[in-house]
Formats: sequence, structure tokens, C-alpha cells
Amino acid sequence: MTHRCKRSSGLWKIAVWDEPFFQGKKHEFTTDCYSTLDHGFSTVRSCRIESGAWAGFEHCGFQGQQFVLERGDYPCWEAWSGSNAYHVERMCSFRPIATQHRGTRRGRGCSGSFWHPQRGGSMVLPALSHRRSLLCRRWVCSQYPGYRGFQYLLESDSPAGEYKHVREWGSHAQTGQVQSIRRVQQ
Amino acid sequence: MTHRCKRSSGLWKIAVWDEPFFQGKKHEFTTDCYSTLDHGFSTVRSCRIESGAWAGFEHCGFQGQQFVLERGDYPCWEAWSGSNAYHVERMCSFRPIATQHRGTRRGRGCSGSFWHPQRGGSMVLPALSHRRSLLCRRWVCSQYPGYRGFQYLLESDSPAGEYKHVREWGSHAQTGQVQSIRRVQQ
Repeated sequence: MTHRCKRSSGLWKIAVWDEPFFQGKKHEFTTDCYSTLDHGFSTVRSCRIESGAWAGFEHCGFQGQQFVLERGDYPCWEAWSGSNAYHVERMCSFRPIATQHRGTRRGRGCSGSFWHPQRGGSMVLPALSHRRSLLCRRWVCSQYPGYRGFQYLLESDSPAGEYKHVREWGSHAQTGQVQSIRRVQQ
Repeated sequence: MTHRCKRSSGLWKIAVWDEPFFQGKKHEFTTDCYSTLDHGFSTVRSCRIESGAWAGFEHCGFQGQQFVLERGDYPCWEAWSGSNAYHVERMCSFRPIATQHRGTRRGRGCSGSFWHPQRGGSMVLPALSHRRSLLCRRWVCSQYPGYRGFQYLLESDSPAGEYKHVREWGSHAQTGQVQSIRRVQQ
């Protein structure tokens, strides 16, 4: 079944299954899923991103650990959980990652301006700045080098594009440790 | 203690500890470590890449699962193991990842020419071509999107820069499934 609620642009499509390796009941979404329970299944156990980039979350209501999901196949929870201190065998909500500003800011973009981690060592980022400029981007920060460990999705439509404290990063993990940063792929 | 054997250029430096979180006995290397046992410790339980990029291996003699290690801190095995089907709590050998051709090919470079994974789906790559051109690069291929899962290090000084079968990728994993590819960072 395909779920279309709220806004749907055709830019995003995710297929999810309630069993690993694309088995069990299949559901397709083109927009937010606040809770898998609302659609009759308890959690996602495999998924395929068919278009756009998506943010997956451990708990319902876009809470808990964050997983940036780009185009491709995720046959089991290991495929999206990363090498985290605790392993997340579920994903109970997900939503598209927007690449354009909405409302009055539509069409304007942003580029990233970060306090970079000190090269060659770990650090705690007390705050992070992400100002609007020419190109609109979303960033994924990772706990360890090589895009491993906990992920934090940073989006430029946060108030003023700034993250003044790790608590504002919106992740359950909140280690505050970032050793690699990259753009979200569309 | 610092171990310098064979060639040492000053371009690569790794500090390893025999306990997690940079505890226990510390060893520094500037070149290949064929076996941690040769240096009086059974395995690496935490490490810091101070310069250059390194390839870590599950077993002695550069065998088993491969881990591409770039600058930064790896406080525990979860930091380098990725989200693999089985978790590797050890790293028993490691070596620098060269960015220049050696011998007669010194100074010449290479650029990547891959059979790209089909967008939006997983695939098995039966072979992979990596020909020399203008820029010298090393590539890391990952099993899942977003640089997750098993890693394969592909280097252009493989014979003819070609990998005709997944068995030639040199990894214990050999899933043959690649969903993301990126350059090794120096």
C-alpha cells in the first residue's frame, strides 16, 4: 500500500517492509510517517530508498537515534544503525529531508559554515553554525571518522541555522562528539 | 614506544593502545605492522590516526576484514568496525595507504572508473575497473549506502588497476555488494 498524506511532491519515495530482507508486508510512503503503528506495523525491519533522502528515527514521533537514509537498499537493521554503542533494531518513524527552504525562503539556499573538528583528534562541539548563503545543503555529522557511529542530521531551517548546544541537534545520542561531516546525498 | 621498520616517510603515524579508550600500553607506528603479536600485544583496542590514511585488518598478515582508518580517534572497536553482520573486536595488523605509485610509476596518478551500482538498488559487482589517468586516488567501497557495512579498499597498484572478481578485492567479507563509494581521505 502507498501512504500519501500532507504534502507529497514526488521527490521522495521509500518502501518499507515489516520483516528483514524485503519480506513480509510492504508499505510505500512519499511523505512523513509519524508512527509505523498508525499504519498497522510495529517497526521497519528493511527498507529501500527509491528517491530523495530520508531521516529515520528509532522511536515514533521522530525521536531517538537518527539515521540518514540515502538511495539504496537497507536489508536489515545493521544496514542503517551504524557502529553505535547500542544497536537499534527498529525504526518507528521517518520523514523526507527537504533540500529547499519552505515558505518565504523557498528557492534560497544555504552553505555550511562549521566549527571544524580539530584535525587528528576528537573534540566536543559546544555549538555549530550553519548560515544561509548560496547553496542549500543538509549535513550529516558522525561521531567517528569515516562516517561511523551516531549520526546527527543538521538542517539549515533550524532557527537562524545555528545549533547553540548539542541538545539542539535533536538526537537521542547527544555525545557531542563529531569527527566527520558530509553533505546528505540526494 | 615507536616502531620504525622498512620504509618510513613521516607521512603516516598511528598510535595504538592495547586497552579501549586510549588506556594500557601505547605503541606508535610509522609504517607496516604485520602482526601486533610481534610487538608484544595481542590486538589493538583503541587507536588514533595522527597522519596519513591507514588500512587496518582483523587478522595478522593483513588478512580478514578491512577497515579504512582516516585521521581521528577510534576509542573502541565499534569506532572502526562499522555496522557489519559480525562485529570485529580486534585489529591485528595495519599498514599505511599509499597515495603515490611506487617504483617506475612514481608520480603518475590514477582516477577511478567504476561500474557504478545501479541507483536506488543494491547490486553485485562481478568486476571493477580502476584505470590510471591524471590523479592518484584510493577508494573505499562500502556494502550499504552512507558508507556503512563491510569495507573494501581498492588501490590502483593492483595488477592493471582492475579487480576482475570480488575474490580479488582482498577482503574476508566478499559479499560483492557495494552501495557506496568514496575516496580515501588523507
